[in-house]
Amino acid sequence: MNLRGIFPPIATPFKDDEIDLAAMKSNVARWMKTGLAGLLVLGSNGEAPLLDADESFRAAAAAREAVPSAKTMIVGAGEESTHATVGAVKRAAEAGADVVLVRTPAYFKSQMTTELFVRHFTAVADASPVPVLPYNVPTFTGVNMAADAVARLALHPNIVGVKDSSANLTQIADIAATTPADFAVLVGSAPTLYPSLVVGAVGGIVGAACVIPDLMVQLYDLAMAGRHAEALALQRKITPIAKSVTTTYGVAGLKAAMEMVGYAGGLPRRPLAPATPQMVEAIRGQLEALGVLGAA
Amino acid sequence: MNLRGIFPPIATPFKDDEIDLAAMKSNVARWMKTGLAGLLVLGSNGEAPLLDADESFRAAAAAREAVPSAKTMIVGAGEESTHATVGAVKRAAEAGADVVLVRTPAYFKSQMTTELFVRHFTAVADASPVPVLPYNVPTFTGVNMAADAVARLALHPNIVGVKDSSANLTQIADIAATTPADFAVLVGSAPTLYPSLVVGAVGGIVGAACVIPDLMVQLYDLAMAGRHAEALALQRKITPIAKSVTTTYGVAGLKAAMEMVGYAGGLPRRPLAPATPQMVEAIRGQLEALGVLGAA
Amino acid sequence: MNLRGIFPPIATPFKDDEIDLAAMKSNVARWMKTGLAGLLVLGSNGEAPLLDADESFRAAAAAREAVPSAKTMIVGAGEESTHATVGAVKRAAEAGADVVLVRTPAYFKSQMTTELFVRHFTAVADASPVPVLPYNVPTFTGVNMAADAVARLALHPNIVGVKDSSANLTQIADIAATTPADFAVLVGSAPTLYPSLVVGAVGGIVGAACVIPDLMVQLYDLAMAGRHAEALALQRKITPIAKSVTTTYGVAGLKAAMEMVGYAGGLPRRPLAPATPQMVEAIRGQLEALGVLGAA
Amino acid sequence: MNLRGIFPPIATPFKDDEIDLAAMKSNVARWMKTGLAGLLVLGSNGEAPLLDADESFRAAAAAREAVPSAKTMIVGAGEESTHATVGAVKRAAEAGADVVLVRTPAYFKSQMTTELFVRHFTAVADASPVPVLPYNVPTFTGVNMAADAVARLALHPNIVGVKDSSANLTQIADIAATTPADFAVLVGSAPTLYPSLVVGAVGGIVGAACVIPDLMVQLYDLAMAGRHAEALALQRKITPIAKSVTTTYGVAGLKAAMEMVGYAGGLPRRPLAPATPQMVEAIRGQLEALGVLGAA
Repeated sequence: MNLRGIFPPIATPFKDDEIDLAAMKSNVARWMKTGLAGLLVLGSNGEAPLLDADESFRAAAAAREAVPSAKTMIVGAGEESTHATVGAVKRAAEAGADVVLVRTPAYFKSQMTTELFVRHFTAVADASPVPVLPYNVPTFTGVNMAADAVARLALHPNIVGVKDSSANLTQIADIAATTPADFAVLVGSAPTLYPSLVVGAVGGIVGAACVIPDLMVQLYDLAMAGRHAEALALQRKITPIAKSVTTTYGVAGLKAAMEMVGYAGGLPRRPLAPATPQMVEAIRGQLEALGVLGAA
Repeated sequence: MNLRGIFPPIATPFKDDEIDLAAMKSNVARWMKTGLAGLLVLGSNGEAPLLDADESFRAAAAAREAVPSAKTMIVGAGEESTHATVGAVKRAAEAGADVVLVRTPAYFKSQMTTELFVRHFTAVADASPVPVLPYNVPTFTGVNMAADAVARLALHPNIVGVKDSSANLTQIADIAATTPADFAVLVGSAPTLYPSLVVGAVGGIVGAACVIPDLMVQLYDLAMAGRHAEALALQRKITPIAKSVTTTYGVAGLKAAMEMVGYAGGLPRRPLAPATPQMVEAIRGQLEALGVLGAA
Repeated sequence: MNLRGIFPPIATPFKDDEIDLAAMKSNVARWMKTGLAGLLVLGSNGEAPLLDADESFRAAAAAREAVPSAKTMIVGAGEESTHATVGAVKRAAEAGADVVLVRTPAYFKSQMTTELFVRHFTAVADASPVPVLPYNVPTFTGVNMAADAVARLALHPNIVGVKDSSANLTQIADIAATTPADFAVLVGSAPTLYPSLVVGAVGGIVGAACVIPDLMVQLYDLAMAGRHAEALALQRKITPIAKSVTTTYGVAGLKAAMEMVGYAGGLPRRPLAPATPQMVEAIRGQLEALGVLGAA
Repeated sequence: MNLRGIFPPIATPFKDDEIDLAAMKSNVARWMKTGLAGLLVLGSNGEAPLLDADESFRAAAAAREAVPSAKTMIVGAGEESTHATVGAVKRAAEAGADVVLVRTPAYFKSQMTTELFVRHFTAVADASPVPVLPYNVPTFTGVNMAADAVARLALHPNIVGVKDSSANLTQIADIAATTPADFAVLVGSAPTLYPSLVVGAVGGIVGAACVIPDLMVQLYDLAMAGRHAEALALQRKITPIAKSVTTTYGVAGLKAAMEMVGYAGGLPRRPLAPATPQMVEAIRGQLEALGVLGAA
């Protein structure tokens, strides 16, 4: 199982507010023809918090049909309680996950200590049929899992890496420096992908990879090959669209961008709002500047 | 239906990690013999984010059996998607809720605008069989719903009030000043209960009411009667324990305090940790100072 | 010396970027004919951080000429180092201060502990020729001085009160509850003036008092007289303009509002920008609604 | 004038609460024998906010005596008002500054927009006899100057670079990408020095360089030479002490560490507290691990 490289956290297309499984499989099949190392189903960009358990299972199972065995399918599975999270990782494994991505619990913020994270993820990893990636995403959860928690979790045989979307390079560097060489540090912020790889990350699960998979893989390859000047130049080129489809415009922006390059996007689920014409215009300009619209 | 007065956001007792419905009913029966105006099942203090849909239904239905019709039973029902929230409020109504408490969506934080809140709660209120109370709790969600959103929601016939746990008196005063007189502004922070009542709130859903219901009702009555000096003196007496069972020690502290005064508390669900001996000691000292331990 | 009542934190008028001392004295003389208990020179609203030591001395000395001895003149005097703060309080006393207002040090934020605050203010109070009011203003300093620090400082014979501009009612209530009855808790946020008085504050140093001194004194008197319904009604009336001249539009808004009611305001010092026409329009509307423009 | 390389933000040694100019010169002479590109006098680590104007002038003038003309002497000169900042940069130039470092104004936080920063720094740069480096340090100021402000300031002929201490790699990368090639992006956070250099920074003004100048210069040289694996390894080695002398223990930690390697450190000025024995112990362990204590 490979956790090095670029993984798109795939969007979930809806049709009349139901998951469009055919569109999803078609998207996945197309992504899997690129150099992407695999994909993530049911991440934040997949609107996982807006799906119920059944929908989540069907989405993961549908994606699995289109992910070849040589690629890694990661499935998101985090819940607030340890008990529910164990249930979710088991369902994800049953749906075909090679690895599960488990976000930190976050509701009772003042209680979210390193001790709590270690206890929670240890219990989840003990029970999970497949390897576990803890997931730190302060932008959405409002809590941060510090490097010392990850260093302790890295000792568990069923915890094989981490996804850190903090964009905090000090933290990412600390995690890479204090975990074993075969522990996969994956980042979740495309605008810091290149410097993150430079300090020890081995891959990225980044929204931009849903839209410009080839460029993101190229950036990864350049960085890994030590072709730093070219990597930096490419990072600079992709940063604007990378921000638009995440921090600036959110899932609505991601789906609009996907449509422009020929993937099925559709509308986000309520209460999220669709992209406005102004957003669409801004995104189109960025994709044109990258020269990827003709390729769609 | 009465939304004025004090409502405890009741804890959910567990036995071997399952909800102890008998203990819950017994607790509720005892609370309902006091001057409390009703109660809230499945709030944050009820560990709602750690329960699944079935458990939530059974907890609400069990509480209903012990809540007399003269008291108001509020049931928590918030989810991230509008669709799932509509499902949750319908189940809550079926379980016997007089009113549903619906927390703001919060995951996609940068998208949580006044427009989004108005759209979400309007759709939920349109579909809900029972009246709706939007719930703003930045401590747990990491987002704030501003007064202007509440002022707009107050125009909906099925939105009868709001619970605001921000402890932001400017905001609470603004909400009270910009909503109709019969719109119920309930606060969720016992340390600011008295000043909140003074600026226009008409009640409180406060953790301390699970532990010292008589004192909290007395504080409410004093404030409403315009006996300000006595109200202030009592507010000062209850503030320390009110902090301990919420911000300082969380649900674990609340449950430990409940046990000391004779209610079934038990342990919080994982990943939450039980109260440490130091917490128990601190809480015991505060309850002794209030003279309520003999009453247990 | 009286620290109960309403004190305006007076703006500093400039003419060609120099302090207009004549205008300042004229403003002060007019304020001192109202029911205000005194005033504060060289507070945040007085643009104290934008004045040098000489200018500060001259501003305070000029104000003194127009402040009758029956009113209390507070002078702002905080610096980052303990040494410089001692120098500033001595100069303020020499210029005629009855009391000095000393903001918390704040630059080295992570070092700003309760211990540091106690050490700093104790040294300043030991050396000050006049009584000291510590000043907590997180909006501007980015640090908060907690209630436990104030409770300890209240034991010093030369520390006679505190100004807290946090608008955090829990904190203000805690300070009032844990300091002696003759320790003056003054608040710095007009939108929370009434509830602050209700939980134990004895006065306010509030920007709105520069513009609508009579209404602010009336609000104070109503609250102190226990005429709560009228106080609440008046608080609601003054809240919009109170926000405009502080949090919303800053010093530029304050000065524009002062001009409208006949005080010399002028422009703020650079880098602060003057009020835009839109701000002026909004403020004029609020003052018209209060019926105070004809009085100018 | 060279702004590429490593600059220590030198500590200011005190003796009986007065600046020890002899010790300062001796420190500077020793630093200037290393590969450091120059130094910064009167930065945050130099306790500039705790010094008055006369002290600041004497400190800069004393340092100048020991800085050879081939090295660059940067002098800190930021104040809150534009007027006072112009005065400070002129005095700094007179004291011998090759370049002045001007921190953002910060007191009136809600007014600190890109427009205000552009107006302020343009006026300062227009008046300054020497080139200007704007300085963004959110940790201390509580405000952030965004990349778009810096991109606009980079067009001014007398603004030759920026110091950004945000440790925000997205922002540092954006600044480097949107300013001319000869605009010097200097970072102020040693734990992110290497990745910052990788995305376009050309130097660092970092506290650790006061203590381990040779190692910091070596890290810079490795990064510039494209010897990435060695640079990363060295970055990991120096990160722990780099944190101790800044974010973790502040100026007290920096001075304690300087003493251990033979520089005059002394105590920080009040209200800052001296390093505790526990801090000293922790720092000694880190320096021992680096093998630099024998060299002292």
